Amino acid sequence: MQLTDEGKGKKVMVIGGDGYCGWASALHLSARGYDVSIVDNLVRRGYDAELGFDTLTPISSIHKRVAKWKELTGKDIGLFIGDICDFEFLGEAVQAIEPDAMVHFGEQRSAPYSMMDRSKAVYTQNNNVIGTINVLYAIKEFCPECHLVKLGTMGEYGTPNIDIEEGYLEITHNGRTDTLPYPKQGNSWYHLSKIHDSTNMYFTTRTWGMKVTDLNQGVVYGVDTAETGADPTLVNRMDYDSIFGTALNRFIIQGAVGHPLTVYGKGGQTRGFLNITDTVKCIQIAIDNPGPAGEMLVFNQFTEQFSVNELARLVTESGARLGVSVETKSVPNPRVEKEEHYYNCKNTKLQDLGLTPNLMSEGNLDEIMQIALDNVDRVDPRLILPATDWRTSGVKRGVSVKA
Amino acid sequence: MQLTDEGKGKKVMVIGGDGYCGWASALHLSARGYDVSIVDNLVRRGYDAELGFDTLTPISSIHKRVAKWKELTGKDIGLFIGDICDFEFLGEAVQAIEPDAMVHFGEQRSAPYSMMDRSKAVYTQNNNVIGTINVLYAIKEFCPECHLVKLGTMGEYGTPNIDIEEGYLEITHNGRTDTLPYPKQGNSWYHLSKIHDSTNMYFTTRTWGMKVTDLNQGVVYGVDTAETGADPTLVNRMDYDSIFGTALNRFIIQGAVGHPLTVYGKGGQTRGFLNITDTVKCIQIAIDNPGPAGEMLVFNQFTEQFSVNELARLVTESGARLGVSVETKSVPNPRVEKEEHYYNCKNTKLQDLGLTPNLMSEGNLDEIMQIALDNVDRVDPRLILPATDWRTSGVKRGVSVKA
Repeated sequence: MQLTDEGKGKKVMVIGGDGYCGWASALHLSARGYDVSIVDNLVRRGYDAELGFDTLTPISSIHKRVAKWKELTGKDIGLFIGDICDFEFLGEAVQAIEPDAMVHFGEQRSAPYSMMDRSKAVYTQNNNVIGTINVLYAIKEFCPECHLVKLGTMGEYGTPNIDIEEGYLEITHNGRTDTLPYPKQGNSWYHLSKIHDSTNMYFTTRTWGMKVTDLNQGVVYGVDTAETGADPTLVNRMDYDSIFGTALNRFIIQGAVGHPLTVYGKGGQTRGFLNITDTVKCIQIAIDNPGPAGEMLVFNQFTEQFSVNELARLVTESGARLGVSVETKSVPNPRVEKEEHYYNCKNTKLQDLGLTPNLMSEGNLDEIMQIALDNVDRVDPRLILPATDWRTSGVKRGVSVKA
Repeated sequence: MQLTDEGKGKKVMVIGGDGYCGWASALHLSARGYDVSIVDNLVRRGYDAELGFDTLTPISSIHKRVAKWKELTGKDIGLFIGDICDFEFLGEAVQAIEPDAMVHFGEQRSAPYSMMDRSKAVYTQNNNVIGTINVLYAIKEFCPECHLVKLGTMGEYGTPNIDIEEGYLEITHNGRTDTLPYPKQGNSWYHLSKIHDSTNMYFTTRTWGMKVTDLNQGVVYGVDTAETGADPTLVNRMDYDSIFGTALNRFIIQGAVGHPLTVYGKGGQTRGFLNITDTVKCIQIAIDNPGPAGEMLVFNQFTEQFSVNELARLVTESGARLGVSVETKSVPNPRVEKEEHYYNCKNTKLQDLGLTPNLMSEGNLDEIMQIALDNVDRVDPRLILPATDWRTSGVKRGVSVKA
């Protein structure tokens, strides 16, 4: 891990800085000379407590994390524990930090969690949409020059039968042409909440002349970056449960514990992926390249696209190299989604701005598989199978894990 | 007013049935043999109390309205006073009514109200989006065959430089073709909330196989229908204030009291309009023509499109016929919007299903102008000027009317 001064002390507020992507991004920026403050209500740890889950890697409290970082690097990271849906708290944090840029990871980020029942659907949309409205008003009121870098998801686009562009689409219709927001089709309350955020931000950017970058991020895999891997106290979380775990990380852990990889349905579902080490680079690039005030930039933040079946094959091959025999089975798809579809997404904007992707080479997968093997005694097999069904989401409270 | 049995006792739950469009629709349906229940939290009356406003026409309480209707027609209208954001209340109402169709007018419907300040922005999006999520879960849980007829707005489309289709757009891009949701660009927190509703409903319709019709309604003008005009106790509300009044009704009342018509900016803003007498017919047509389960129907519900300048001219001409001299002045536009733009919206689907429009003929405008003249002593001139500015919407609570 190398410390540099390329951030030149730029003040960056990282909302959701205790989460998987947020923690890695906060350290990446701090190591590069940005003046980082974390704003987080720690609810990601609360979901684990609620559902009886735990990260595969044993993470430390945010207070211990920040203290260890200071000890290792001499760098201070500000800590503001509270909820951005509470505007009084948010306003005070923003006025204390006076950020040049805000990175907003602070949303409920699980599609299955949002689909568990009505109350979680309402929670997810309220939490995400209202939190972001508060962020937009806080910037307008307290730091109008601040550049907002907001995490969206590639899932906002759904799986249309045409190429997916980065945020906007030039459409010719009945002889006239306009460039319009790309039509969105989300497939869970979570994905829909991110569409709402994008629609809201597009409005305030134009109406108030704000500087906003919307990052449609793909599925993130991997565990550590150079910074989170520098000390056990800084280790990043790794979720393998069916609610917060994402496809590739779950497959790797299933393979490590000898559970068949659970392919949902036909396995032709194709998505964009990126390594956590690229997430943090993308965040830095986005911060350093705001658009003109009043024009919302949209970047598609992923480096490669794979189908679920292709992921299963890659994990099987990685297991073979590490001496683990991996099987695959198809399980009934708990989601309502196309299992075979066209998928061709553009992702050149971040690379044009300097991103050199860390692709899913053998070395990357094997490294993650090794972390899983090292922590295999921490795996709770009850968490592996799908627990939320899109069709049965109802009024009765969802119970994700049965004893 | 004629009573018929064309509704054949079909049970219809009208959410927001105490409001401007809701009340007229409830009576229209009841008069035609639908079994109507009103669900309303009476918050529209609350906004008037909050802001010091009042409808130009003196409306009765919902209890007196329903009792008078029973006295005149022998028809019962069920009354459930409560908030659909309270799922316990909504669930009980739905189970008591067992509706065949729900008409959902129950949202905060003013763009300027939503832009007054942060707290009203949050209120509007929370109230509208969460209320509709609750409605969707209530249908799934308690009456899955129920057809939801949801009021959206033409304002969801914004003012793109291409023709506006009804809900969907066939797009050819890089040699491939798909039919996708029409790209939306709302221009206030209110309009955005309706976009979110449409996006959410499109998801649940497909995922849960629901029957949903999304009505993108234009600006409604006029006061009474045959039913609300049948007795003074049934009279409909008419809003002329700058927060809840819509363009044409406001102009008519400005003309009646001798205030210059306040054209915002250049006045080239063009929108779709319809008479309240057509709103109620459209609702009936929508109820009686559900699409197949799993396919969301979208109708553009307006009959004519006019620019603000054209409306001013029509009101001036109506005034001349009634002996009132009407002047027009341009005021600084409190909204951020295009004041000159292309606008060509399709609206054939409802007409194909049987709507015969009641167009903005001289007789219609003169009748509304006469109602305004009859109630001129009730006009509070403080309410006429714009009170919400899109640019200054902030954290400090907006005050719409100064004493």
